[in-house]
Amino acid sequence: MPFSAAEIAKIIGGEVVGDPATILTGFAPADRAQAGDLTFAENENYFGRAEQSAASAVIVEGSFTSTKKVLIRVSNARIAFAKVLAIFFPEPTFTPGIHPSAVVPATANVDPTAHIGPLGANSQLGEEVNLFPNVTIYARTEIGNRVRIHSGSVIGADGFGYVQDVGMHRKIPQIGNVIIREDVEIGANVTVDRGALGPTIIGKGSKIDNLVQIAHNVVLGEHCLIVSQAGIAGSTKLGSYVVLGGQVGLAGHLKIGNRVQVAAQSGVMHDIPDSQKWIWTPAQPDRQAKRQMIAMQQLPDLLRRVRALEKKLGEEPPK
Amino acid sequence: MPFSAAEIAKIIGGEVVGDPATILTGFAPADRAQAGDLTFAENENYFGRAEQSAASAVIVEGSFTSTKKVLIRVSNARIAFAKVLAIFFPEPTFTPGIHPSAVVPATANVDPTAHIGPLGANSQLGEEVNLFPNVTIYARTEIGNRVRIHSGSVIGADGFGYVQDVGMHRKIPQIGNVIIREDVEIGANVTVDRGALGPTIIGKGSKIDNLVQIAHNVVLGEHCLIVSQAGIAGSTKLGSYVVLGGQVGLAGHLKIGNRVQVAAQSGVMHDIPDSQKWIWTPAQPDRQAKRQMIAMQQLPDLLRRVRALEKKLGEEPPK
Amino acid sequence: MPFSAAEIAKIIGGEVVGDPATILTGFAPADRAQAGDLTFAENENYFGRAEQSAASAVIVEGSFTSTKKVLIRVSNARIAFAKVLAIFFPEPTFTPGIHPSAVVPATANVDPTAHIGPLGANSQLGEEVNLFPNVTIYARTEIGNRVRIHSGSVIGADGFGYVQDVGMHRKIPQIGNVIIREDVEIGANVTVDRGALGPTIIGKGSKIDNLVQIAHNVVLGEHCLIVSQAGIAGSTKLGSYVVLGGQVGLAGHLKIGNRVQVAAQSGVMHDIPDSQKWIWTPAQPDRQAKRQMIAMQQLPDLLRRVRALEKKLGEEPPK
Repeated sequence: MPFSAAEIAKIIGGEVVGDPATILTGFAPADRAQAGDLTFAENENYFGRAEQSAASAVIVEGSFTSTKKVLIRVSNARIAFAKVLAIFFPEPTFTPGIHPSAVVPATANVDPTAHIGPLGANSQLGEEVNLFPNVTIYARTEIGNRVRIHSGSVIGADGFGYVQDVGMHRKIPQIGNVIIREDVEIGANVTVDRGALGPTIIGKGSKIDNLVQIAHNVVLGEHCLIVSQAGIAGSTKLGSYVVLGGQVGLAGHLKIGNRVQVAAQSGVMHDIPDSQKWIWTPAQPDRQAKRQMIAMQQLPDLLRRVRALEKKLGEEPPK
Repeated sequence: MPFSAAEIAKIIGGEVVGDPATILTGFAPADRAQAGDLTFAENENYFGRAEQSAASAVIVEGSFTSTKKVLIRVSNARIAFAKVLAIFFPEPTFTPGIHPSAVVPATANVDPTAHIGPLGANSQLGEEVNLFPNVTIYARTEIGNRVRIHSGSVIGADGFGYVQDVGMHRKIPQIGNVIIREDVEIGANVTVDRGALGPTIIGKGSKIDNLVQIAHNVVLGEHCLIVSQAGIAGSTKLGSYVVLGGQVGLAGHLKIGNRVQVAAQSGVMHDIPDSQKWIWTPAQPDRQAKRQMIAMQQLPDLLRRVRALEKKLGEEPPK
Repeated sequence: MPFSAAEIAKIIGGEVVGDPATILTGFAPADRAQAGDLTFAENENYFGRAEQSAASAVIVEGSFTSTKKVLIRVSNARIAFAKVLAIFFPEPTFTPGIHPSAVVPATANVDPTAHIGPLGANSQLGEEVNLFPNVTIYARTEIGNRVRIHSGSVIGADGFGYVQDVGMHRKIPQIGNVIIREDVEIGANVTVDRGALGPTIIGKGSKIDNLVQIAHNVVLGEHCLIVSQAGIAGSTKLGSYVVLGGQVGLAGHLKIGNRVQVAAQSGVMHDIPDSQKWIWTPAQPDRQAKRQMIAMQQLPDLLRRVRALEKKLGEEPPK
């Protein structure tokens, strides 16, 4: 479904700078854009890349000008971005049961109540995959060999992405997918959201316990263990052999090294280098946190001791 | 199904004070009771309202007397209340798929595996509603226009309400419902319980991430963002534009103002005024909490410093 | 399906000490092993029991010798154990809907979308059981009278059990089951994993709120209340009348006494004696924790006060 630059501008409330009849056939980030594509530049840096790209037109905010590209100028580029994704990427629909486009090998054991949307182009369900009852697989998910997914888990639902637009939260269409590598096991009632753009990836051999949340564009390395009810916010990347205890929370956009271990219920707000053990909320290296935990036990007594010193030195009691 | 006061008294183990043949056709709180209704008074305050109401009979605990109403006197009014609800509000049954009473507009995209119980009287599923596979909608839920509910979410299950009765937890039938206003999006594997009495409400434009728990009689204002794995306990009311971070917990019966922001993993045990940012467990205003977090990092060193002062002043070391 | 000791040794990469033609017909822990069974000994203690048992052969690690039993010697007994379970206990398959072996009494209200695997030998679904839409019951689960299980809950999925084997996590087949006693209510989207060996048990009259995780081999006593999003790690045992607040986490292998109450969001890492109230992360008896919470509020001020004392005594400021 091609659109002219003028049609797009009308839908997203912008103004064309250049030939309004320019035909646009798709949308892509600058580094993957091809002739006919529309792309998007939030700031000078991105605009430079967009100008160098093969894209035919660029959505811009503010006063950029170009001799190379047709521009569609808008007042808020992120809102325009959300609108334009919805135009170029209409939502794939579910058909009951297994979508006819899904290639399911004879060795896969797919419960008849599992729902499988259209699988990704050039991909198929792996060999010896086990999908238990009431699993839902959204469109374009890729599932490797010997993956097991327990009942109630939902793979590939929309990530939680909105942009504020005059007092309401406008949805940013989530057009990425989920890739699950071989030998992954996913427990019951887990949620793995598909990427906003690009994939959410569960690395080879990783094991995910029940009720875990994996947000959009998270990347899990190989052989990670994610214990029950942990949650990983958007775009955080984990190395390999990472272990997250139960109910751990990781903030978004973090980089967690290889062989990192995070103790149960910790809340991580910073990158963690390889092989460290972190604990507590806000999470810290475990030795440091444990010294604070022990000190905290002595805190009520410390207050008493400081008051005794103050008295001895003739200080007034604190208000 | 009308009952006589005597029949009700027999079922709930009470004694009729007044005409035992009085016919009772329903049960309602005092402020909504009509002639023929039975109502319920736990204390003097409620008893006053019950006497002023149009109800025909009142369940009471203790020594109340009335010249206006038939009383059914019991030893524990809450237990009697639980029993009487079960009599007047038998559980609606599910029928496979979409209940014949549900009015589903042609623009709604309801996956055939979604389950929809009988919808509320005078209500219907809104226009352009999207229910993804394996969604369950319990009876009498009301869903506004353009609502999206992702796979595995359960809307309208029983709230968690019991009353202790001789060593066991007697169920308080949950006879309210869930109302979801327009433009709400609900992620995957979310649970929104129906009200005990009256509705649980998700305000217009609010967005709820995966694995969130919304308990009975919670009210969310408009355009709230509730991030993954947060939980809101019973009867808590949120204003508009509230943001709850991931894994936040709100205690029950709180009042959270407009534009409040609560940081991830915080545990809120108090009301929060408009526009404040709270953090930590137990949650506090963020500046106050951050000063404590920073101070805690210095605590092990502080212990050493206080000991040095004590030494200088000839104090014994603490045991 | 009987195997010879030589066949087993070949599959698990071990060496037979004794008659390689010994026929093995099953696998069991030493205390339940019968003639023909293979059993397993990780250390001297277990080896002593295995030798006393009726088992015909024992998997051992290291240099044990026996005049009574055929041994299969391996380099890592836990890995061999995981492999041998997979041989003797092939995974039961789901059939759509209710498995033909499941005995469902007429009084049970089982939604047609609920999935029920083959139920345990000599067991059946209880009277007046309610399974709401999209519930999944894995094989061999036992469900008592008047149990209610809300939509989306998954009973009996695999516990989270792996053993590290040359850089990958080898699955330990989970061959136990789940037993739910009478009068239990389970909320929506709950997960109760089946035992690794032996059962996970939910005691009579216990009530479990939405999105709770119960790991393998947990035992809940009678009349417990487990509030939403709490999680109980593997093999932890709870007494009766225990109350866990929302989002509580219990570590594995703990013993929690009768009538214990744990406040919301607490993280419990130790056994708790009867009737205590614990709070906070790491959880402590509530009076002790509350004194620390109050003291922490004074901590920023305490730092200032200690600095004032140091100044008075001519101490250098801390770096």
